[in-house]
Amino acid sequence: MILRVEHIGIAVKDMQKANDLFTMLLGQKQYKEERVESEMVTTSFYKTGETKIELLESEAPSSAISKFIEKRGEGIHHIAFEVDDIEAEMVRLREQGVVILSEKPFRGADNKMVCFLHPKSCNGVLVELCQEIK
Amino acid sequence: MILRVEHIGIAVKDMQKANDLFTMLLGQKQYKEERVESEMVTTSFYKTGETKIELLESEAPSSAISKFIEKRGEGIHHIAFEVDDIEAEMVRLREQGVVILSEKPFRGADNKMVCFLHPKSCNGVLVELCQEIK
Repeated sequence: MILRVEHIGIAVKDMQKANDLFTMLLGQKQYKEERVESEMVTTSFYKTGETKIELLESEAPSSAISKFIEKRGEGIHHIAFEVDDIEAEMVRLREQGVVILSEKPFRGADNKMVCFLHPKSCNGVLVELCQEIK
Repeated sequence: MILRVEHIGIAVKDMQKANDLFTMLLGQKQYKEERVESEMVTTSFYKTGETKIELLESEAPSSAISKFIEKRGEGIHHIAFEVDDIEAEMVRLREQGVVILSEKPFRGADNKMVCFLHPKSCNGVLVELCQEIK
């Protein structure tokens, strides 16, 4: 079951400039920066209410974030929904015809198991499902 | 001051199909549909935790949503942050050099006064500020 919007991912070209901007905008500093090697990105997190903002800077031209920026420019990259049981959600959504971009959940940023739903299955929105690792 | 992510706006071509999809995805029906004449859109709202999902369907080829879909296709259109004092935030952000797309706040959907920050000022993100009308 989908519980809430856990975070919104934003693709940025220059993390330092983006951190300066979001620090000014949100009136707070990022609470965490973290590399996610599997995705070839550096992430920076802000808390705003119960939904986080996750800035994403590419570390390699072949990363999904590089390709996204090349095609569409900087901007909102994905919405992540927290789920109570990611494997059960993947089964449920596949049964509904939703295309999921990985066979199984994998380790993402911020101590989460994650998977992504294809934007073609979700009105053009790249949807992440995530579940805290306990 | 920015308090939290109030909602995420998603541009859709066909509200009925999009409602079917998000009802399936979120496991709930929309709690409200509302026309916003000033923006030439129909909106549909879902609650997920404290952050809402707002689907936006254009009612006219000249609306901002029509132009967005023409240029970029369906997908995430904006992030809306709830603020405690929209006029004070507009003054604060203008002083920081942020370009705001209206001189004053105006009435948006869901009983809110709203304004939009130019994506060029916000890493490619169209940011809405909103404050509940009391």
